[in-house]
Amino acid sequence: MSSLDFLAWSRDVAGRMETALAELLPAKQLPPSRLHDAMRYSTLGGGKRVRAMLVFAAGELADAAVDRLKVAAAAVEMVHAYSLIHDDLPCMDDDVMRRGKPTCHVEFDEATALLAGDALQSLAFQLLAEYRLGDRPESQLKVLQQFALACGSRGMAGGQAIDLDSVGKSLTLPELEHMHILKTGALIRASVTMGAHCGRELSATELEHLDRYAKCVGLAFQVVDDILDEEGDVATLGKTAGKDKAAGKPTYTSLMGLAPARKFAAELLADAHEALSPFDGRATRLRELADFIVQRER
Amino acid sequence: MSSLDFLAWSRDVAGRMETALAELLPAKQLPPSRLHDAMRYSTLGGGKRVRAMLVFAAGELADAAVDRLKVAAAAVEMVHAYSLIHDDLPCMDDDVMRRGKPTCHVEFDEATALLAGDALQSLAFQLLAEYRLGDRPESQLKVLQQFALACGSRGMAGGQAIDLDSVGKSLTLPELEHMHILKTGALIRASVTMGAHCGRELSATELEHLDRYAKCVGLAFQVVDDILDEEGDVATLGKTAGKDKAAGKPTYTSLMGLAPARKFAAELLADAHEALSPFDGRATRLRELADFIVQRER
Repeated sequence: MSSLDFLAWSRDVAGRMETALAELLPAKQLPPSRLHDAMRYSTLGGGKRVRAMLVFAAGELADAAVDRLKVAAAAVEMVHAYSLIHDDLPCMDDDVMRRGKPTCHVEFDEATALLAGDALQSLAFQLLAEYRLGDRPESQLKVLQQFALACGSRGMAGGQAIDLDSVGKSLTLPELEHMHILKTGALIRASVTMGAHCGRELSATELEHLDRYAKCVGLAFQVVDDILDEEGDVATLGKTAGKDKAAGKPTYTSLMGLAPARKFAAELLADAHEALSPFDGRATRLRELADFIVQRER
Repeated sequence: MSSLDFLAWSRDVAGRMETALAELLPAKQLPPSRLHDAMRYSTLGGGKRVRAMLVFAAGELADAAVDRLKVAAAAVEMVHAYSLIHDDLPCMDDDVMRRGKPTCHVEFDEATALLAGDALQSLAFQLLAEYRLGDRPESQLKVLQQFALACGSRGMAGGQAIDLDSVGKSLTLPELEHMHILKTGALIRASVTMGAHCGRELSATELEHLDRYAKCVGLAFQVVDDILDEEGDVATLGKTAGKDKAAGKPTYTSLMGLAPARKFAAELLADAHEALSPFDGRATRLRELADFIVQRER
């Protein structure tokens, strides 16, 4: 896939992911069918698949087999989908639109949405234990542990708790950054680590550089999200715009202003590129992906 | 621990579990502290620890080290606690009392309860990947996969979906059985498998017998639950009694009547003992545990 331009490559990854997810998710006909329908509804046919692209791009760097990357990326996308389902519930962000269609609890019901999220998390771990992803089972257990940590109270779920707790409060920039490092950053870092793990073993230094790249990209992703949310409308975003601001949630744009937030995103992008310096030409996809994340319009 | 009588042994396991869970759960002081507080609140200081006892009893049969069993049992109890937190939410069973104290969303709030459940599931998988539980990492991955399957849409979460869907409907006995085999049975079977896995390798036949035992015990557990729910009151049960019946949920007692349900529980107990026949004297704890599950009064 390395000869494709970025747009073609990203479409290729998105297409592979759709096929892989459709295969790995339980069939709609399989009982309990309403639950399986909800799991498929919220995971298939939408999203930018940024996390899947990060798995593939990091995997390419380590010459990983596509079959392994598909499973790892599917697990990450399932966890991401579960987090969105739960995040959209009335007791959380109470959102009605996601990826251009009604949120899971609107399309189905709250209980089904709750269970669909729960079951997607279980399924992600099931896949990561079921398929051989790395050459050594010991290191697969290690990666699984890191991934679980990234999902839990000291990762994504913890970030969501801090996010909820911050409504109506004035956070400092470091506090906002800490929240996002957990809420979106942890899963993005885990995506990169997992992709790299699927290939030949990288050195500790290489893994460190990759992780620094992932940290910068994760944060840039959120800063750009805030900028788009400030500027955007529902038609472009496929979700309710200006919502965080209206809900009294602190954002980069509300804390820094629009122009400094744009400058910050550009700095993070430069840092992400800098972190890839030891890889020379091997990190082209990761570079392109960082550019895409910062320059996207939705 | 094998020289203790059953009551002393079960107290010993419960005590060990309390200590292990207190150590393995994130400290209350660690941010996000409200989330960690909620996770500890719902996992510590309560419950019969039946699943932990099954892990220990199956582990003893395979001469497993106590340190391994503690981690496996903690993971199972965390998943059980998460399922209760989510099950009690207003969009599910909307329950206000659990284990003799206010449910998680009553004591904290709905969003925190949702995230506490989510993070407990992640933490369970983290522990099962982090600690060495079996002699071979390949077989640990296999057990992890089975455990995840037991948690997901074709296990516990699926059973809850069928349970919700059955409100106000008249299920047949086989349909009710299928629901419980998933809802409570899957995790109980996984507890026994996981405990056995922590020790020396058992033969396929031995594992099959253990699994048949676990199936009978899992179902008996639910039948007895229904009987107690029919007879009991809040003071004895520590949770709202007669609730399932009032909610129009099908139960063994409503479908069979009280006396036939008692007879069915006794038959399942006999089957559970029969399944242990190849183990002779080595399965004493598992036998005592089956008796305890059927003869308990709360």
